[in-house]
Amino acid sequence: MEQPARINHPDLAEPLRSRWSPSVFDAAHEIAAADVELLLEAARWAPSAGNRQPWRYLVLPRGSAGHAALVEHLSRGNAGWVPRASLLLVSTIARGADGNDFGDLHVPLHDLGQATAHLTLQAHAMGLHVHQFAGFDHAAVAAALGVPDDALVLAGIAVGRRGDAAEVDPRDAEREQRERVRRPLGEIAFGDRWGEAWTPAEG
Amino acid sequence: MEQPARINHPDLAEPLRSRWSPSVFDAAHEIAAADVELLLEAARWAPSAGNRQPWRYLVLPRGSAGHAALVEHLSRGNAGWVPRASLLLVSTIARGADGNDFGDLHVPLHDLGQATAHLTLQAHAMGLHVHQFAGFDHAAVAAALGVPDDALVLAGIAVGRRGDAAEVDPRDAEREQRERVRRPLGEIAFGDRWGEAWTPAEG
Repeated sequence: MEQPARINHPDLAEPLRSRWSPSVFDAAHEIAAADVELLLEAARWAPSAGNRQPWRYLVLPRGSAGHAALVEHLSRGNAGWVPRASLLLVSTIARGADGNDFGDLHVPLHDLGQATAHLTLQAHAMGLHVHQFAGFDHAAVAAALGVPDDALVLAGIAVGRRGDAAEVDPRDAEREQRERVRRPLGEIAFGDRWGEAWTPAEG
Repeated sequence: MEQPARINHPDLAEPLRSRWSPSVFDAAHEIAAADVELLLEAARWAPSAGNRQPWRYLVLPRGSAGHAALVEHLSRGNAGWVPRASLLLVSTIARGADGNDFGDLHVPLHDLGQATAHLTLQAHAMGLHVHQFAGFDHAAVAAALGVPDDALVLAGIAVGRRGDAAEVDPRDAEREQRERVRRPLGEIAFGDRWGEAWTPAEG
């Protein structure tokens, strides 16, 4: 199958330039503990408001009890491709950890996203790939993994080496082949007024 | 003044390895429109749930009316260092954009964090620095920049070239010199049970 171009923008620096989210992982890949540690270090050094570091990750390599618990509660659409990833993570925030009352969760969730982006880009730099997913029974996974009521489960994170599309369900292989699209820049970047497209001429 | 070490972890890939958030920007630096565009492209290509791309940025280079409007509403602690940055951004999400009803804002805010992390790391790769800030009158800025009620202002983002500490308020120069610390890995990474420290032996 022909591969579509996966360069996000030719002038971006690596690992930003060629990061993407495959759906075909190598079910034979085993991730080294040192690699897992480095991914977590990338997240650990992300910036956060007041340096509160609200991110908490459950670390579930394939073969662990936690990996099996998460796999058991995947949505049907995720049940094929997710278990092939050599490492699953569950991203959460600790709401009231260490006496921090976050008030609304806006900023901690934003900062969790930053930490996961760091982890993702570090993975890409190491020749691994990351694909996040929301489709699982969050309450059941929280219960199975002992996530307390004052924490919030945000997403699943599949990490691994890319696999052979011939080995997987054709729907998962096809999902990878879709053209990667984004909104035009003028829809996400505004000038002096929200809603009015920014253009490089204003730079 | 001696510079503290700013390597986050020696084995991380650049630009993750040496990213940090200075408080001393070069007030003489002017950012090129092409550089602004590339920063926005980095954000644009971030991953998001369902590829909804909820991020929206106000783009306010120094000298623009929007830059002046934001500066007018900075908290006292930010009024010294923020205006020196050659580019200010305001990160927002469009709550109901394009018929998307996000329900709660958890996932869009998480994804905004991812996009801003991408922008930040791209900036670092280009020799620029980024320091986000929350201390401004969000409602006044939203009003001044025409942010609609169905959008949410999350943060300010200062972007620029690093400046000379001798030119700035000593408090801003000192802020930069604080030791950069993070929680130990075992506080943010758990094994099969939330709250139980993950260790590399489990990898």
